Amino acid sequence: MTLHTRSAPIRVGILLLLLAVLLLAVGCAPRGPLPGQRIAGPPVNDLLELSQDPRDYAAVDTGASVGEKRQSELYEKFLTRFFGPWEMTRSGYAPSEALWGLTRYAKPGFGENTLQRDPEFSQQLRRESRPEAFPSEARRAITLRNTSLRVLPTNRPYFEDFDKAGEGFPFDYFQNSALWAGTPVFISHVSESKAWLYAETAFAAGWVPAGDVAFVSDAFVEEYRSGQYVALVEDDVSVEDPGGRYVLTAHVGAVFPRFGSGGASMAGGYDVLVPVADTEGNAVMKMAHLEPTDAVAMPLTYTSRNMAEVARTMMGRQYGWGGLYENRDCSSLIKDLFTPFGLWMPRNSAQQARVGEVTKLDGLARDAKKERITAEAVPFRTLLHSPGHIMLYLGKREGDPVVLHAIWGLRTESEEGAVGRKIIGRTVITTTSPGLELELVQRSGHDLLERIDSMNDPVAE
Amino acid sequence: MTLHTRSAPIRVGILLLLLAVLLLAVGCAPRGPLPGQRIAGPPVNDLLELSQDPRDYAAVDTGASVGEKRQSELYEKFLTRFFGPWEMTRSGYAPSEALWGLTRYAKPGFGENTLQRDPEFSQQLRRESRPEAFPSEARRAITLRNTSLRVLPTNRPYFEDFDKAGEGFPFDYFQNSALWAGTPVFISHVSESKAWLYAETAFAAGWVPAGDVAFVSDAFVEEYRSGQYVALVEDDVSVEDPGGRYVLTAHVGAVFPRFGSGGASMAGGYDVLVPVADTEGNAVMKMAHLEPTDAVAMPLTYTSRNMAEVARTMMGRQYGWGGLYENRDCSSLIKDLFTPFGLWMPRNSAQQARVGEVTKLDGLARDAKKERITAEAVPFRTLLHSPGHIMLYLGKREGDPVVLHAIWGLRTESEEGAVGRKIIGRTVITTTSPGLELELVQRSGHDLLERIDSMNDPVAE
Repeated sequence: MTLHTRSAPIRVGILLLLLAVLLLAVGCAPRGPLPGQRIAGPPVNDLLELSQDPRDYAAVDTGASVGEKRQSELYEKFLTRFFGPWEMTRSGYAPSEALWGLTRYAKPGFGENTLQRDPEFSQQLRRESRPEAFPSEARRAITLRNTSLRVLPTNRPYFEDFDKAGEGFPFDYFQNSALWAGTPVFISHVSESKAWLYAETAFAAGWVPAGDVAFVSDAFVEEYRSGQYVALVEDDVSVEDPGGRYVLTAHVGAVFPRFGSGGASMAGGYDVLVPVADTEGNAVMKMAHLEPTDAVAMPLTYTSRNMAEVARTMMGRQYGWGGLYENRDCSSLIKDLFTPFGLWMPRNSAQQARVGEVTKLDGLARDAKKERITAEAVPFRTLLHSPGHIMLYLGKREGDPVVLHAIWGLRTESEEGAVGRKIIGRTVITTTSPGLELELVQRSGHDLLERIDSMNDPVAE
Repeated sequence: MTLHTRSAPIRVGILLLLLAVLLLAVGCAPRGPLPGQRIAGPPVNDLLELSQDPRDYAAVDTGASVGEKRQSELYEKFLTRFFGPWEMTRSGYAPSEALWGLTRYAKPGFGENTLQRDPEFSQQLRRESRPEAFPSEARRAITLRNTSLRVLPTNRPYFEDFDKAGEGFPFDYFQNSALWAGTPVFISHVSESKAWLYAETAFAAGWVPAGDVAFVSDAFVEEYRSGQYVALVEDDVSVEDPGGRYVLTAHVGAVFPRFGSGGASMAGGYDVLVPVADTEGNAVMKMAHLEPTDAVAMPLTYTSRNMAEVARTMMGRQYGWGGLYENRDCSSLIKDLFTPFGLWMPRNSAQQARVGEVTKLDGLARDAKKERITAEAVPFRTLLHSPGHIMLYLGKREGDPVVLHAIWGLRTESEEGAVGRKIIGRTVITTTSPGLELELVQRSGHDLLERIDSMNDPVAE
């Protein structure tokens, strides 16, 4: 592996010295944190040296635009996908597909008390899932608030052994995906207790708490599909009704129908429709207003500048595996980012890496790969993929590709061979070789750049 | 410290041998889990040797009963407390009291990515809390589903350093208490975004998500206070309306008004009223039915046998700090357990230890304390307290007090002096010296029996 060399600030030297002392010290001594596992410590150099404002990488238009016609085409596809669940009449899955979690997680995992669960837990989940009765339902619905698609019908977590590097909290394998408020879904199954509903969305499926969705009538569907849509360009936006009453919280990635016949709202901003439940669990529409700083009429023109503006609001948010805590993981970041532009993205990194025009990069030597990327990738448009990870290319810096991504951590290896993670845990801007100044990272041999195996242009014809 | 001696099964010897080998081995070697921190491993002996069915300790009436008159008195007090929030006209707190979290947690804690947060997080919470505007509201409300009282208006967790024994997940210091569905509350403040409401309950206060409560009118209050009440005696009960539609999930500790003029429901079981929200966020009543196996008309006669029956359903549930995941911590276990009997308990262990007639036990030598407890405590009635912990006395076994409690873990100390926790993490029945067969526990000097500093009879006049 070619060491990634760069000018070494004094602090790197000091850091290495401190690390060496630490490693020597903990070799045989009463110990503190296990260096082989979760490594906190100061931020990696990239976070200190690279601007964390995406706009700084979009000062000049980078040619990300696709033109109005192409963007229109893509936007139509987006809407078709988004409302797809309301075109369904029955489940799109076989029972074993929908309830894959019963097989994959049949053995007891580790629970919220960090210990291995009793087998009874898995048995209870099987009973609650009622696989023999799937699919037991066929109704269209919509989410009333930000919620989650769970792999199995429970709010309890499924962890792997906390003692393994990169496992335990917050990696809850039952967390399939966050589901933003106002998402059309198709309900295809009801749990034994009725407390959970199996929801099929346009991009993923899983169990949602029954109270977080409301069923939609034909009339609702017809009115809700107003033909004009508004997307959030800020996170944590409170959506209120005309009386000032709080209805729900919306983040980038959320989409609502525009109310009225287009044209700017009297107050500036956008009048939209939002769903609430009546006392029978059926969806009813309310009017709400979104400020012009919080939302845009879709599709927002796809330019590097606009992408940078939307991305800016998402910077620094903590990493959320499967959207836990309404945070973002690597692929939900990409998906939400593209949404205001009316560009549909699937929910996981492997699928996202296959959208549009794909260029394979595996097998390329490190420097050749670097050159290929920096020569051909389009800032704010090209996606870079490595196994289990996806990043948005932003440009280059001193010959290195620079990316925007939600990253959990970097694999590390101590002198004694203990594997760990140097935690980054947020949406950040780095080179494709973050943390290489750390011996712990170097020793792991897991240079992110070397793991990149493809890049793709998701909006190419 | 006097070693607690008991007959030593062969397995204890093997266990000690294995531990010795392990301790020697990890003294200077590449390592796995840090023995000084979270210790999983096989269950402590008490869990293998003591029946985990409370009914086995109530075969004979233990004299826990208080008599009908006394229980009636206590039940009246319960109802007064339970509905207390609906007698309020304004907040019961000064701003600094209600928003104590802003001071206590002013410094950044550790977040869901396990790293220390930026100061911006604390500043944002201060803005969201609007301390200068407290109290900004004065409305009566009711919870629509099981929810949480948060110390500050956020769903994000506040952890201490994950590298410290007994810290990190799942100890979210922002989790004040679970709040069961159907709990009367008084809303005294609204957050900046309106997404959070400050709710004052009869036993605790904190922030709840706005969508989890609905406001109640005078008419609602009058009808809801039907005069007869039903308590859950099972966990995870699905409550449905007459049309079979799921409304909410109820656990032991939940209370609902009985519908109709008393007498058994036609179907057996109980007709109750449950709250749902209309589209304006106001509470509306629905009828629901509870099975006779899931609920009782309050107050359930207070006998050791009945206490054992209710406790049985709560056994084995994972420990939930502040009711996280709708689990129970040591004091919510006690509070919920006493609820069907109409016996009001405060929400934390220190307060619970002061209810009724208190007998101080600190300063007593270990054996003297043991004798005092086993001589005077009443099974299924007396509470035993140690700092931060509360237990229900069940009787004695071979001279040792036996208790039912929700316990996180036992403090341990490795040979090198590293402090850790042997995790139990559930509602269990043990002696007052669980885990003493483990050297790691012995060395810590934290024998639970020695830490018991008082006992109290919560129903004494």
